[in-house]
Amino acid sequence: MTQGGTNLPRVGGYNQAVVLDAIRTAGPVSRVELAPLTGLTSQTVSNVVRRLLDAGLITEAGQAPSSGGKRRTLLSARADGAYAVGVQLDPDAAVVAVVDLAGTVQGTRRVRLTDPGDPAAVVAKIAAAARRLTARVPVDPARLLGTGIATPGPIDGTAGEVVLPPNFPGWGRVPLLEMFGEATGMPVAMDNDATVAAIGERWIGGRDRAGSFLFVYLGTGIGAGIVLNNTVLHGDTSNAGEFGHMSVAPGKRVCHCGGTACLGPYVSPAAVVADLVERHGRPAADRLGLEGTPESVHADWQRLCGAARRGEPVAVRAVREAAALIGRAARGAVALLDVSRVVLGGDALRGIEELMCEEIAAAVNSTSVARAIRPVTVEKSVIGEAVGAVGAASLILHGTYAPGWRMLTER
Amino acid sequence: MTQGGTNLPRVGGYNQAVVLDAIRTAGPVSRVELAPLTGLTSQTVSNVVRRLLDAGLITEAGQAPSSGGKRRTLLSARADGAYAVGVQLDPDAAVVAVVDLAGTVQGTRRVRLTDPGDPAAVVAKIAAAARRLTARVPVDPARLLGTGIATPGPIDGTAGEVVLPPNFPGWGRVPLLEMFGEATGMPVAMDNDATVAAIGERWIGGRDRAGSFLFVYLGTGIGAGIVLNNTVLHGDTSNAGEFGHMSVAPGKRVCHCGGTACLGPYVSPAAVVADLVERHGRPAADRLGLEGTPESVHADWQRLCGAARRGEPVAVRAVREAAALIGRAARGAVALLDVSRVVLGGDALRGIEELMCEEIAAAVNSTSVARAIRPVTVEKSVIGEAVGAVGAASLILHGTYAPGWRMLTER
Repeated sequence: MTQGGTNLPRVGGYNQAVVLDAIRTAGPVSRVELAPLTGLTSQTVSNVVRRLLDAGLITEAGQAPSSGGKRRTLLSARADGAYAVGVQLDPDAAVVAVVDLAGTVQGTRRVRLTDPGDPAAVVAKIAAAARRLTARVPVDPARLLGTGIATPGPIDGTAGEVVLPPNFPGWGRVPLLEMFGEATGMPVAMDNDATVAAIGERWIGGRDRAGSFLFVYLGTGIGAGIVLNNTVLHGDTSNAGEFGHMSVAPGKRVCHCGGTACLGPYVSPAAVVADLVERHGRPAADRLGLEGTPESVHADWQRLCGAARRGEPVAVRAVREAAALIGRAARGAVALLDVSRVVLGGDALRGIEELMCEEIAAAVNSTSVARAIRPVTVEKSVIGEAVGAVGAASLILHGTYAPGWRMLTER
Repeated sequence: MTQGGTNLPRVGGYNQAVVLDAIRTAGPVSRVELAPLTGLTSQTVSNVVRRLLDAGLITEAGQAPSSGGKRRTLLSARADGAYAVGVQLDPDAAVVAVVDLAGTVQGTRRVRLTDPGDPAAVVAKIAAAARRLTARVPVDPARLLGTGIATPGPIDGTAGEVVLPPNFPGWGRVPLLEMFGEATGMPVAMDNDATVAAIGERWIGGRDRAGSFLFVYLGTGIGAGIVLNNTVLHGDTSNAGEFGHMSVAPGKRVCHCGGTACLGPYVSPAAVVADLVERHGRPAADRLGLEGTPESVHADWQRLCGAARRGEPVAVRAVREAAALIGRAARGAVALLDVSRVVLGGDALRGIEELMCEEIAAAVNSTSVARAIRPVTVEKSVIGEAVGAVGAASLILHGTYAPGWRMLTER
């Protein structure tokens, strides 16, 4: 309950992470510049840099132009210094990616999950795909640090389990962390998908994602990741950011959580498709190519988004109405957290980023507080579609090296 | 943008704060026990303790029972080691309190603000009351560290100004920090009232308020303070916790911010009184003793709360309906922040704490997430009515000594 002080023995590892993060985000950079960037003495910087060079995590990359005195050697992070596998788990498919220390995706596979009701089969299939992918890329096994999993919530962070995930019918408590550890034989870290995406965005976004932001993630459902003062908010039970349960729409629609005012049941792709079909009937749905069955949600949503991008009024209206509700929830979240940046991402956002950003920006900037004190920027992810998988890999890469992030658990 | 490392020269002051906080919350405590509590070496603890003793902030208070070896001297914080003035500013009145280092209120004054439209007059009146109070208590001037102000928001944290506070008609941008500094000749810290109350609650609450919680503050309006991992969330512009703008009640009522779904306009004391009078008419209002004029809001609200406490159905219903809406917003905030504790406070809560806690607890615990993963505790403030003034004083006392809190500005 008391915050800890700092003794010298603990400073080494922390300082190593601080220096690596500074080189990664500000590099190429000289030792002299690192001291003010990190708040460390030149002597400490020098020692830490030597250790990072020895570990192959950074490299000397040329020299800075002379400014009269001795020329300065520049340091860069080595992208090939470390790798991790990132897995984004969704009910219909998993995306598996191999990501390097710079956050670049080196290879990716989409794994269709034909039997999402069987957790063991899901894990085995993904682990096999990851093995094939790391062999193909290829990656030096000694530099492959582990596997990060982005899973739909809710999760029990202490136990490393997902608990009754609403989009995986039939799953009770599933010890995913342990199962992936056994299947891959590597260290595994896990967190909920929206939080993972926010971590990835912070990791890759550099200066553009410094400080605090709300990451709104639209996939099978809607969620959020929260970054405050450069640190992701995990929450008491690792379930922070359950944005879909913001109470913004009092009505008759009952959320899977039991609530009647939750945002989620109004703005998920499945709900927006169903609402459009119900409101406009079969002719309109046929014109847009929507089948309107539970199995066709993924394809229907892509067609709906495509139609919205082309400016089809029915589709544009459906997207705008969902965005306005998301904007209302985002306005509340922004008021609560006092962040001046909202980032949108997730694979269900493809093609409608601009429409969504515009509508949500209007909602969060409609208040007098926004006008007088805090205009809010609304932007799409700098990573794009792969944000979940890149974020999952960063649970391993960033969690190991960068300060301030907490790995959920490590085998 | 890069997080700073830790060099030795900066560790001293931070460690002093860590040790004082540990002694204050865990004391009486021996030097030997402090090492594991703070994560510091015995040698560092010993040095820091000597400095705190010299400064008169802690005292040696007896000896621990012998457990075979050498008997251990116990250390306690000295309540009279330091004092601060706390001011809670409300439109109709300000509460001024003198608080010691233990958080005990040594004296208090209520200052009626007959001309709330004139910021200079308000500041002068409060400063004069503070001078009379510190002379009367009395406090050693050398140990009086400054004045903390809890003000209704929104505020401009960088400038130390309140900006268009809705409950102070006619105020534009008012540089309260500077004005109080000039009027008192002392260091001044300022923050919005709900955040200040949350800081005070964390400060006084010890183990019961460790970790993370949402503090819902009901005064003239409704707001919230957010404590995450023992640290208060200030937000990008020092306006975190604008709970009254959570969008939970889509309807025709327009908030002062311009929004149409904000919680605030439905649950402020003025709104609840007006709604009751409108719904049940004059006879019911007369029976409860409600005048129903803008000037009588404070007295009307006290009568309404008194009636609710006695079980008058009309009043109970009014309080329960407001609480249910607050609960709906709290459910969203809890889902977003993943905190497992909600604390209620503020002077408008007097007499209805139990009713409010019950209704809000039901709302936040109605979801499957709450049942499966995170039951949420809802409790009233451990400080009670003075939470605003004690919290304001703690901006000075806690901001100076305890780690993790940020003073808004200091003269």
